[in-house]
Amino acid sequence: MKLWDKGFSTDQKIDHFTVGNDRELDLLLAKYDVIASKAHAKMLGDVGLITKDESEDLVRELDSIAKTIDGGTFTIEDSFEDMHSKIEFLLIEKLGNTGKKIHTARSRNDQVLVAMQLYLKNELTEIKSEVRILFDLLLDLAETHRSTLLPGYTHLQIAMPSSFGLWFSAYAESLIDDLYFVNAAYKIADQNPLGSAAGYGSSFPVDRTSTTKEMGFTTMKYNVVAAQMGRGKVEKAAAFGISSIASTLSKLAMDICLYMSQNFDFITFPDELTTGSSIMPHKKNPDVFELIRAKCNKIQAVPNQLVLITNNLPSGYHRDLQLVKEVIVPAIQDIKACLELMHFSLKEIKVNDKILEDPKYNYLFSVDTLNELVKNGMPFRDAYKKMGAEIEAGTFQPKKDIHHTHEGSLGNLCLEEIREKMKGITDHYI
Amino acid sequence: MKLWDKGFSTDQKIDHFTVGNDRELDLLLAKYDVIASKAHAKMLGDVGLITKDESEDLVRELDSIAKTIDGGTFTIEDSFEDMHSKIEFLLIEKLGNTGKKIHTARSRNDQVLVAMQLYLKNELTEIKSEVRILFDLLLDLAETHRSTLLPGYTHLQIAMPSSFGLWFSAYAESLIDDLYFVNAAYKIADQNPLGSAAGYGSSFPVDRTSTTKEMGFTTMKYNVVAAQMGRGKVEKAAAFGISSIASTLSKLAMDICLYMSQNFDFITFPDELTTGSSIMPHKKNPDVFELIRAKCNKIQAVPNQLVLITNNLPSGYHRDLQLVKEVIVPAIQDIKACLELMHFSLKEIKVNDKILEDPKYNYLFSVDTLNELVKNGMPFRDAYKKMGAEIEAGTFQPKKDIHHTHEGSLGNLCLEEIREKMKGITDHYI
Amino acid sequence: MKLWDKGFSTDQKIDHFTVGNDRELDLLLAKYDVIASKAHAKMLGDVGLITKDESEDLVRELDSIAKTIDGGTFTIEDSFEDMHSKIEFLLIEKLGNTGKKIHTARSRNDQVLVAMQLYLKNELTEIKSEVRILFDLLLDLAETHRSTLLPGYTHLQIAMPSSFGLWFSAYAESLIDDLYFVNAAYKIADQNPLGSAAGYGSSFPVDRTSTTKEMGFTTMKYNVVAAQMGRGKVEKAAAFGISSIASTLSKLAMDICLYMSQNFDFITFPDELTTGSSIMPHKKNPDVFELIRAKCNKIQAVPNQLVLITNNLPSGYHRDLQLVKEVIVPAIQDIKACLELMHFSLKEIKVNDKILEDPKYNYLFSVDTLNELVKNGMPFRDAYKKMGAEIEAGTFQPKKDIHHTHEGSLGNLCLEEIREKMKGITDHYI
Amino acid sequence: MKLWDKGFSTDQKIDHFTVGNDRELDLLLAKYDVIASKAHAKMLGDVGLITKDESEDLVRELDSIAKTIDGGTFTIEDSFEDMHSKIEFLLIEKLGNTGKKIHTARSRNDQVLVAMQLYLKNELTEIKSEVRILFDLLLDLAETHRSTLLPGYTHLQIAMPSSFGLWFSAYAESLIDDLYFVNAAYKIADQNPLGSAAGYGSSFPVDRTSTTKEMGFTTMKYNVVAAQMGRGKVEKAAAFGISSIASTLSKLAMDICLYMSQNFDFITFPDELTTGSSIMPHKKNPDVFELIRAKCNKIQAVPNQLVLITNNLPSGYHRDLQLVKEVIVPAIQDIKACLELMHFSLKEIKVNDKILEDPKYNYLFSVDTLNELVKNGMPFRDAYKKMGAEIEAGTFQPKKDIHHTHEGSLGNLCLEEIREKMKGITDHYI
Repeated sequence: MKLWDKGFSTDQKIDHFTVGNDRELDLLLAKYDVIASKAHAKMLGDVGLITKDESEDLVRELDSIAKTIDGGTFTIEDSFEDMHSKIEFLLIEKLGNTGKKIHTARSRNDQVLVAMQLYLKNELTEIKSEVRILFDLLLDLAETHRSTLLPGYTHLQIAMPSSFGLWFSAYAESLIDDLYFVNAAYKIADQNPLGSAAGYGSSFPVDRTSTTKEMGFTTMKYNVVAAQMGRGKVEKAAAFGISSIASTLSKLAMDICLYMSQNFDFITFPDELTTGSSIMPHKKNPDVFELIRAKCNKIQAVPNQLVLITNNLPSGYHRDLQLVKEVIVPAIQDIKACLELMHFSLKEIKVNDKILEDPKYNYLFSVDTLNELVKNGMPFRDAYKKMGAEIEAGTFQPKKDIHHTHEGSLGNLCLEEIREKMKGITDHYI
Repeated sequence: MKLWDKGFSTDQKIDHFTVGNDRELDLLLAKYDVIASKAHAKMLGDVGLITKDESEDLVRELDSIAKTIDGGTFTIEDSFEDMHSKIEFLLIEKLGNTGKKIHTARSRNDQVLVAMQLYLKNELTEIKSEVRILFDLLLDLAETHRSTLLPGYTHLQIAMPSSFGLWFSAYAESLIDDLYFVNAAYKIADQNPLGSAAGYGSSFPVDRTSTTKEMGFTTMKYNVVAAQMGRGKVEKAAAFGISSIASTLSKLAMDICLYMSQNFDFITFPDELTTGSSIMPHKKNPDVFELIRAKCNKIQAVPNQLVLITNNLPSGYHRDLQLVKEVIVPAIQDIKACLELMHFSLKEIKVNDKILEDPKYNYLFSVDTLNELVKNGMPFRDAYKKMGAEIEAGTFQPKKDIHHTHEGSLGNLCLEEIREKMKGITDHYI
Repeated sequence: MKLWDKGFSTDQKIDHFTVGNDRELDLLLAKYDVIASKAHAKMLGDVGLITKDESEDLVRELDSIAKTIDGGTFTIEDSFEDMHSKIEFLLIEKLGNTGKKIHTARSRNDQVLVAMQLYLKNELTEIKSEVRILFDLLLDLAETHRSTLLPGYTHLQIAMPSSFGLWFSAYAESLIDDLYFVNAAYKIADQNPLGSAAGYGSSFPVDRTSTTKEMGFTTMKYNVVAAQMGRGKVEKAAAFGISSIASTLSKLAMDICLYMSQNFDFITFPDELTTGSSIMPHKKNPDVFELIRAKCNKIQAVPNQLVLITNNLPSGYHRDLQLVKEVIVPAIQDIKACLELMHFSLKEIKVNDKILEDPKYNYLFSVDTLNELVKNGMPFRDAYKKMGAEIEAGTFQPKKDIHHTHEGSLGNLCLEEIREKMKGITDHYI
Repeated sequence: MKLWDKGFSTDQKIDHFTVGNDRELDLLLAKYDVIASKAHAKMLGDVGLITKDESEDLVRELDSIAKTIDGGTFTIEDSFEDMHSKIEFLLIEKLGNTGKKIHTARSRNDQVLVAMQLYLKNELTEIKSEVRILFDLLLDLAETHRSTLLPGYTHLQIAMPSSFGLWFSAYAESLIDDLYFVNAAYKIADQNPLGSAAGYGSSFPVDRTSTTKEMGFTTMKYNVVAAQMGRGKVEKAAAFGISSIASTLSKLAMDICLYMSQNFDFITFPDELTTGSSIMPHKKNPDVFELIRAKCNKIQAVPNQLVLITNNLPSGYHRDLQLVKEVIVPAIQDIKACLELMHFSLKEIKVNDKILEDPKYNYLFSVDTLNELVKNGMPFRDAYKKMGAEIEAGTFQPKKDIHHTHEGSLGNLCLEEIREKMKGITDHYI
């Protein structure tokens, strides 16, 4: 960042401006560029655009590069613009003219597209798996604390009885909705763009069906112009998915921060998950949850960032599209960190099982008391008036032995049905 | 809007501020409130919370209200806060005490939730069907103009040969991606929230499985707190879906506006679809497409509007959530209008079939010429240098008889495969 | 909205799509179109493009139209596209050929620009004045409740003593910051665009200095292309200003909703400002403040809406720009309503003056107790450790007689200095 | 970023999650923390909270730390959470107990606030100066190319004659508007928050007037709660300012990319400012301008990012606010880079002075021809019809000798007046 301040040549400035942090991001994507390059090399050999021997040489050297990536020793020096040029350099260094042939019938554009889509498929799968782990924890907590009551609020006013069982499993069931978007994003990414070249295909007789199968894509993005249009769009699809999860985590973190306040005192966490203050020695601050909330709120801005970068650009590639990488990759890292930290912290939660002993919560039971009147035959609107009068007169007696029996109520959480619903969505990508 | 300027009492101001344009929006939703009320009344009778006769009376009167809605004579006067109070008023007017019983075991909150979700299911189905109609037109146009060439651009620079076949079908295939999000939104809406009452369920032994089946929901949102959390979330899901379609329409409109410019002159439309200028009598302005672009760009701001209204609110109902209705309903109307107008206008398109006769497009063919060298055995990077030298020396001869054969290229559009892909997604869920 | 559903002809659909709700919005802007038309007519007479008699006739008829607007009898029928065509129609109806001459040397584009900028200048002035009224109330409340203590929170944890004096005047001083943006927006609007015609000026020798003075603009937007670029930009400037105010009001509303919760119980409002619930008869819900919060959060989405509509459009007019009107005008109405309702409601606030009697707030005083140790010579970090030990050991005794004396602290609110700062900004530009 | 993948302990994960990239960002802010610490130390000595000798010792050591920062040798090791703890560590290392006393009567919260505000004042001043440099170049280019004509477009349709003089100076005058927001942001930052401690002031008799003067703030944010509320708000103010500039640069970049297309061919740049394509050897791609556009579009998302992070948080500090730093600092670096690169590249522009020789631009002159008829006495609407008939009949003869004389038109650019307007705004506040 200090680059712009002093002491750098114009060329260095332009390089920094145009390349940005692409090299750093490409370290995460290089693995997928190699996978795609292997599929491409095999196909070139199969259709005769290069010889079988050339194809095998390329695959072998790509396997060897893959090992350096897995081992963490692969690097992209400043003399290379990105991973693509570094990998091609390594192939030429080893294989001479054969190395140069890897770029036959492809372009930087479809290389970037296919690497990003393979990366997203992998990351979305991991995210889905982390969501499932958090979901399982939430259901376990709901099971454990199913009988511990909690005030339910509307308008932040004390309203009706709720329970920790309801509260934990509500977030579990909400996470299922988020996965519909993760699945949608996965399906959009799961269409092979390789072969679209610079966005208009090529005169080489490539076999896109073969590379589609080789890389494990379910289908291909047939139209080459559509494949190119996917740049930015597939990332935005992933952003919808992760921002949906982020929205759920943010709300859960908000509840937690509120419930940890001394004015609620519903839950606590061990000291190692809270922080002190430099000037107020008695406090236990929920920094981890505040940061989950803030990071998840920042993630919810990502779809809009991507819209702004890509909007009103005519069809066809523009260099603008390079910037989507630096927006989506950190957002993916962030949501994974938030999911992991939420799980790590939430399993340490201690719930207060004496909350409703405070008389300020007596009014929680007014609705159930009213319902008794209705069950005994009084029309709702009349019972409503009678209750209001009793409360006004101070003669109201809360009836605290509540019996909620319907599906999804605090006496009938339907945890198994919720678990089945999640199974239905995580066992498929659809 | 003039309300705030002068002459209104405080009560009127507060009423206007708190009710807003809810009554107008509710005219679109009332139909769904009646459907849900009928299912609720039947269930109340089935479980014995009201008598069978009361249940039948309620259903009959609700059917009669439904007819006034269908017939366009249902109104919500200023003396009613919303559709719910008007419908309840009508029931009480006809049925006395029985009318009052319709509100047993439900709350305004789950009433709003279920009406909105039924509305969204219906609207998303209609939108999907309009997308399919536009998709079919785009594929027909691609078929008709499959052999008409068009310059392909990258960086807005003349790059490689494209075709109207490619261009039209690219937008068709892109629309498929958008429908993955529409389907995700549909599935999120397709979970019955009725019975969650004010967000904490009730002590009445309601049968939510029965209302779920009666209203045609595939499943229910079991957890009552999760059902309430769906407010805002289900609308945001729909917003992701329609903003995804909007993004595709906006880009198509941008291309059209560009291609209609005299500097491109690729396409034209009949006079009735363009406008003149008050001061430049010779112009044919693409107002319809500019407005599709602008409306679709505005629609892309909707998810962020919904995030801002709902974000950082703790769980439980807040009056803030009322505002999501006035954001999502117009957006749905807008996307439907844009889809309809795009279809209506696009079918009148005239394409210029002599574009590539202009010599400025000769360089379009340089890549294909280069590829011939590669096919004849020259390594790509060497062929690339040779071509560059010829172009520099002015000796380059374009080879205009192009043969692109691979899947999705201009010589092999794979329209049937694209049609199959669309079939796979539109034949489900809706 | 039902237009798209059934029964409308294509022409009606296109008309509805392209005109939208422009006619309704134009009723608010027509007054300014008349002001600009009068200045234009006078100038045309002065420079000899029309005769003095023609100029006077036009001015007289425009005055007469202005009276119908003020009187509320001006209408824009569906046969007119907008206010401009209606007003021109009225002039021609009365004055024949002379009426037609009003359009000499101007275009619809600069007409819209100048009317919008005059409208914004007026609205921003009114908004500033409403902010000032709320500011005065907040300072009065701070004065009245200067000695009533309130817990101060950090991380939503009880932290240090605050006061209602501090709380009210904090929002007052924050509003001053918002007005810097309102002033910036005002200055951007305060540059006459009339004479820029369709964005490229004209060959008529118009006198823009004269219309600038006549309409009360401080300067003109000289460059005609820049004047046209102002479309969307000047509205976005206003949006920055009002979203800044909205951000402050939203936070104040959030505090109020929290403080009204039974878990805080810091403040109350009379019954007429709260609402009950259909199923929980004991509640007092802060609907007005929740709606202020929600509307202000929606307003904060407006700058992004405007960016999305205008972004990546090349210079020069596009029909897209028409949509900015339907975004900015309701936002202005909304912020004015929120300011008015906040003022109307806040003046009824009742504060609880016994909050700190609850022993859970004892730790509030730990910092002041610690500071005593420091004043008596102990290094801060050592005093900090000693206090922590006492609190841990349960031997901590709060020292409740607090003396904060520095500028802006609870013992020295500097209300006069804050009032002076506001005076410095509201006495200028408007 | 790989931190989350494997091999890190829980403590390291939490540290990474909570600290993030704060240490890196703090290297840019440390200079301002030292300035504020010096002012604080001096004041503590002046009011007697520490001795004069202690005060002088602290100031001397802070000066010495400042030198390491200027010299680029200051570091923040992983064992320190941030710059504040590192600087305090250095003071204690050198001065023992005296070092500990620097934290008397302040908190991490007001330390962060004051450092950020000093940083923003400095950066906004630099940005303003870079804008002024670009403005001067644009006016110089307008002067140089004042007589070179350019087609003016509306709806992307050829409309009226424009000129490079108009085009360049339009962007210059637009930049002035952006600076109103930069000035507003500067004034909001220019209010000393030091002394607000953790957001509720302190019982120490600090002299905030003295630190205000010492650090060069024009005024102070009096109310300590308001000072704390400034966190996020002052950054959002800066974001409004830079996103306003970004919007202007983005539009200029869009024009440039369009005008460089072979379909316009209005301007060119030297080879070192364009790039080739890996597969299309003849192209000159405007990558620098595409990246300016994309970065500026991304910057326009920053206000919304900040709103999302801070919105709906009650008053008082929350850890969420830490994230605003990682949003605003890179945005400031980016806008500075874009301004520098735009200036660096734009000065190399070559304009095509034969554009209007192409007969497709003949209709540009139709309006001027029409105006001649009007000047000769024909009512506008009649002249309009006559011209339309001539164009339809193919008998239209363009009158190419245009004479635009009014203020801001292509014959009278008012460059001096625009320069004066800029002088009026850049000579103040900074």
